[in-house]
Amino acid sequence: MYKATVIIKRRPNILDPQGKAVEQGAKLMGFNNVSSTRIGKYIEFFVNTDSKSEAENEVKLYSEKLLSNPIMEDFEYELDEVK
Amino acid sequence: MYKATVIIKRRPNILDPQGKAVEQGAKLMGFNNVSSTRIGKYIEFFVNTDSKSEAENEVKLYSEKLLSNPIMEDFEYELDEVK
Repeated sequence: MYKATVIIKRRPNILDPQGKAVEQGAKLMGFNNVSSTRIGKYIEFFVNTDSKSEAENEVKLYSEKLLSNPIMEDFEYELDEVK
Repeated sequence: MYKATVIIKRRPNILDPQGKAVEQGAKLMGFNNVSSTRIGKYIEFFVNTDSKSEAENEVKLYSEKLLSNPIMEDFEYELDEVK
């Protein structure tokens, strides 16, 4: 079994309205040093197979087809074997 | 200046309906090995100060007060100096 961690970020040239909104809240609360807030996703799951290549394949497909929006997001992943 | 990375996860004993929903999609698409999908947030921003302790303080407050929901989420953060 493998534990997968996938990080999904908007591409740098794509606006992040959620990040902008939260940052406006930060200014209102007096956090004036905070800038360029970008909000992405951090996803964890298990892949129930003993083959690393099969696990990788499944993580990539899952990330591309369901977890991320490939038009405006990029993803990176890590796999750790769970004994 | 520091670059902050904050990861926000639901506590393990709190249900994650978004993760469950995405995982149902996974089963429908034939990814039968995937389980326990949990969806959190991955947040990046800059903190414009030269003092590491001031940056830490601001990151903690920002995470507690705005980025996370302290009732059901935990956060962890990293700070890297940007030259």
